Amino acid sequence: MPERIRTELAEIGEFGLIDYLTKNNETTLATTVLSVGDDAAVIDHFGKQTVVSTDLLLEGIHFDLTYTPLKYLGFKAVAVNVSDICAMMAEPSQITMSVGVSAKFALEALEEFYDGVYEACNHYGVDLVGGDTSSSLTGFIISVTAIGEVVPDRFVTRSGAKVNDLICVSGDLGGAYLGLQLLEREKKIFQEHPTLKPQFGERRHIIRRILKPEARVDIVAWLRDSVILPTAMIDVSDGLSSELLHICKQSACGCVVYEEKIPIHQESADAAHEFGLDPLTCALSGGEDYELLFTIAQSDYEKVKNNLDLTVIGHITEAEEGCKLVTKAGNAHELKAQGWSAFR
Amino acid sequence: MPERIRTELAEIGEFGLIDYLTKNNETTLATTVLSVGDDAAVIDHFGKQTVVSTDLLLEGIHFDLTYTPLKYLGFKAVAVNVSDICAMMAEPSQITMSVGVSAKFALEALEEFYDGVYEACNHYGVDLVGGDTSSSLTGFIISVTAIGEVVPDRFVTRSGAKVNDLICVSGDLGGAYLGLQLLEREKKIFQEHPTLKPQFGERRHIIRRILKPEARVDIVAWLRDSVILPTAMIDVSDGLSSELLHICKQSACGCVVYEEKIPIHQESADAAHEFGLDPLTCALSGGEDYELLFTIAQSDYEKVKNNLDLTVIGHITEAEEGCKLVTKAGNAHELKAQGWSAFR
Repeated sequence: MPERIRTELAEIGEFGLIDYLTKNNETTLATTVLSVGDDAAVIDHFGKQTVVSTDLLLEGIHFDLTYTPLKYLGFKAVAVNVSDICAMMAEPSQITMSVGVSAKFALEALEEFYDGVYEACNHYGVDLVGGDTSSSLTGFIISVTAIGEVVPDRFVTRSGAKVNDLICVSGDLGGAYLGLQLLEREKKIFQEHPTLKPQFGERRHIIRRILKPEARVDIVAWLRDSVILPTAMIDVSDGLSSELLHICKQSACGCVVYEEKIPIHQESADAAHEFGLDPLTCALSGGEDYELLFTIAQSDYEKVKNNLDLTVIGHITEAEEGCKLVTKAGNAHELKAQGWSAFR
Repeated sequence: MPERIRTELAEIGEFGLIDYLTKNNETTLATTVLSVGDDAAVIDHFGKQTVVSTDLLLEGIHFDLTYTPLKYLGFKAVAVNVSDICAMMAEPSQITMSVGVSAKFALEALEEFYDGVYEACNHYGVDLVGGDTSSSLTGFIISVTAIGEVVPDRFVTRSGAKVNDLICVSGDLGGAYLGLQLLEREKKIFQEHPTLKPQFGERRHIIRRILKPEARVDIVAWLRDSVILPTAMIDVSDGLSSELLHICKQSACGCVVYEEKIPIHQESADAAHEFGLDPLTCALSGGEDYELLFTIAQSDYEKVKNNLDLTVIGHITEAEEGCKLVTKAGNAHELKAQGWSAFR
């Protein structure tokens, strides 16, 4: 067997590392005036407004390298930030990427991570324009800031939902959470029986949902092409309930959503049953689906109803009516945020 | 003695924490269209270009909480990013601040940190417009992205220095490194003799340099008022030698700097002698001074010479002449980057 190549980061130093990781970084956007290699990047949005969002991804908290390929992690770190830009109805344009790595990481590992970062940059048409690299005492630390652009005052916040607006969600929900359960189960089995091979069956959809989620730039483009400006929008990172409550709180309204309307992939439903979990609970409280949840005026219903990737799951009500889920049996329950809490 | 108040972060949860820490956050700039509380912030630079820079600050790598007051740390996290914006001759306008904290931190500790963050925001006239909060398995993780604005194409990179340009530096150098040595010495003594009180003597300047550095927004304003556009600029974070080499490499030129011209504070010189260190080496290789290093056309000399906070330390030469330091004795030595390396 060939010897595995391993280059220690200490050998090439911080500036060597930056040069190495950015050597093939080409910027493609006219808005990127100055990119990696100076004290800051310079961006010209030519009269548009700039949208900025930032996320921290920490090993052991947000990801487990036991079963997360570094290339997917690089892609995901970009995608989840692009998703925040989408949730403003803005167009992603640039990102900065900072990483802290402990001595256990070799240059080759970082290169794999950056392969995923660049793949995502190409995929979403964004330029990587800056960042910071540092050693860390423990584990892998990722901080991404995404920048986007929007026609002045045509961005969409969480606070504009109006009574009778329809509540729409893209794609399907609960899959990422179930993919995580599957990976955690196989990790546990592997730790107890290291000779056994992981059994993922045909669960490709849910594994993809957790390891390589997509930001819904396609939905934003479709809404724009369809001349639909949502009244409120958020991306589903902490679970549907939590995000619905954010919109209702910030828009000072209530909502009703219907269990039978909530989109759940067949594979997610099957996996939930295999794990003895309720698929609905996974959809309501499982995080990391990165679908778009938004509200539209009733007059836009005709446009939305034929888009198979969008589902109308309910409508906005007066604040006094609270946030309700109506079950298939017709009972109304109060929606509660049981989403992932960062400090538990 | 009153019981020390301690609120566990798990008690209030992530969204409670964000609400708490941003409850007094007021934005002051017309460019800040939408701030904390949505998926992203929105910024309108009204025809200016946007400048973006980002930094990661990690406990145990970049700071030691044994002797770093959290309030100063919050101030410094903002200041070092504002310094990058200054180094582009741009005006800082917004920041995003992400923190990862382990269970050892109480809400009160984070509040102290944010007191420093808000103090720096007020001081530099920037709005805090977003961020992310997360638990971390170990230690305190800080990631800041600073955004600034500049009149289109009037930013200054590291790559524009021309032969015969004068090399200028603001303030004095080596102080932060010596302050760090002093704090490390007192930490060691304290660990061995916990009853002894730290002996900082009258070394206020160097301790301030390391714990609460200032971004030189005043120098940027003065240059602008004086109608001086530097040909190249960088901030001194890794030591003078390292930064000079960056400018020379990126501008494809050489340089000569003179030992006798390099500005060293009397207190820094005294501390260096006390520690048996060479003050010049501290100035050349000690990091974290956050002064501005820039090159100007000879024709601007008359304007610069009367600014007591600026020192002309040498000039730019042809690339073939290399990067040289001329000692007081008249000997020329090659400049080497011995700055802080993030991976050693």
